[in-house]
Amino acid sequence: MEKLHQFAQQVFASQPFSRHIGAELAAVSSDSAELRLAIQEHHQQQHGYAHGGVISYLADNAITFAGGLALGGNALTVEFKINYIRPAVGEQLVARANARSAGKRFATCQCDVFAVSAGTEKLCAVAQGTVVCAD
Amino acid sequence: MEKLHQFAQQVFASQPFSRHIGAELAAVSSDSAELRLAIQEHHQQQHGYAHGGVISYLADNAITFAGGLALGGNALTVEFKINYIRPAVGEQLVARANARSAGKRFATCQCDVFAVSAGTEKLCAVAQGTVVCAD
Amino acid sequence: MEKLHQFAQQVFASQPFSRHIGAELAAVSSDSAELRLAIQEHHQQQHGYAHGGVISYLADNAITFAGGLALGGNALTVEFKINYIRPAVGEQLVARANARSAGKRFATCQCDVFAVSAGTEKLCAVAQGTVVCAD
Amino acid sequence: MEKLHQFAQQVFASQPFSRHIGAELAAVSSDSAELRLAIQEHHQQQHGYAHGGVISYLADNAITFAGGLALGGNALTVEFKINYIRPAVGEQLVARANARSAGKRFATCQCDVFAVSAGTEKLCAVAQGTVVCAD
Repeated sequence: MEKLHQFAQQVFASQPFSRHIGAELAAVSSDSAELRLAIQEHHQQQHGYAHGGVISYLADNAITFAGGLALGGNALTVEFKINYIRPAVGEQLVARANARSAGKRFATCQCDVFAVSAGTEKLCAVAQGTVVCAD
Repeated sequence: MEKLHQFAQQVFASQPFSRHIGAELAAVSSDSAELRLAIQEHHQQQHGYAHGGVISYLADNAITFAGGLALGGNALTVEFKINYIRPAVGEQLVARANARSAGKRFATCQCDVFAVSAGTEKLCAVAQGTVVCAD
Repeated sequence: MEKLHQFAQQVFASQPFSRHIGAELAAVSSDSAELRLAIQEHHQQQHGYAHGGVISYLADNAITFAGGLALGGNALTVEFKINYIRPAVGEQLVARANARSAGKRFATCQCDVFAVSAGTEKLCAVAQGTVVCAD
Repeated sequence: MEKLHQFAQQVFASQPFSRHIGAELAAVSSDSAELRLAIQEHHQQQHGYAHGGVISYLADNAITFAGGLALGGNALTVEFKINYIRPAVGEQLVARANARSAGKRFATCQCDVFAVSAGTEKLCAVAQGTVVCAD
């Protein structure tokens, strides 16, 4: 299991876009993943909230890692859906995804994205998607 | 109509994340929008393809603008869903969204995202979402 | 609250399709709803499992009622997404939806659908959708 | 190809729920399928429109058949998403799905659902989903 967690961190570290956007793979388990991102000005949309694209990146990637961990190896997100719930303001975004099911080929994952402001988490989006083994 | 198009460009120009990621609002009509992005190394995931987060940003934002134009003003994407079809490789990504319907409060939009390689477009994702008036 | 629960049962009872398909609104709260359906032969697809259309009806309608209860009145589902997880076999289907958020206009709901066989529930689908006030 | 079309009709004819709900597989091609259903009173929700569950059944099943035809055999819908656009009133519902892409394992399909009233089709829902080979 330790090995699988290291593999997840390695994969994450090798994603140029994840570095560019400033995300971190903060926690993993056998079927879940948590991504964090410190909100900066360049993450905003026109009203000063975190852009939907940043939130959907986090959801998409957290789903990929949760699904990959549940499936036990290289994986990719085939599709996902996200509902934005409230404007994301604060210091940080946290995306927590877990696999609701995992078979041989697929995992079905859900993800909650929170905005953290002064230490308080507020739900700002929920997502659901399909992850498949990449090999 | 000219005014609405200028308004769309103004809104787009005031999105720090869209500048940061390097996207451009390349074309608009009364119910559609096209976004373009020159693929750079920092847009990639671990296999050298454009990261799903970049593709979903483009789909999300193209849907927002297509819906906003169809609704005639400030708008936001409530939710969307995306299916990734093939790895996105090439020089550029193009996202073309149009409103399939628009009422007083909502627009339902679809978006095709293409990767452009040596001048040839290949479909790499399709998306569908809901846009609402923001005012 | 009692009044709202009666209203929900009244609305459900006035849906000819819900009667035709044989569903029952088994439980409601201020932001959740449970639908149940006894699986009969005419609910099956070609392999003898409950048809996806039956499962998606339950998810859709459970989401509508959970959202309507959270919004406090007449409501309709604007959109939803469902992932089928495993074949649905057994005596009964149970769909449990709850609102993850509810504002003035919208509620965002999630729904788990279980197949009950010999008293054991197995998750066979997860869904997520948007409900709006109908008035 | 003729054989594949016959196979699709055979599969459809062996779905008890499709017979129960009164649907017909009206047309097929190498990557598309059209389902039709004559709207009867028992298909309605509480306001006299066709129930969302009927519309989502049609979209789901049209997507399954379009995907199965594109993939060339037994197939099942893993997930789909639907946006309801306007109340469905009239004599008939028509769902037209086509595969936007098909690989070895997956097809990504979209579906438009129309209500036909006095010979005029009005778009009442759009859907998008993933179909996989069942074998």
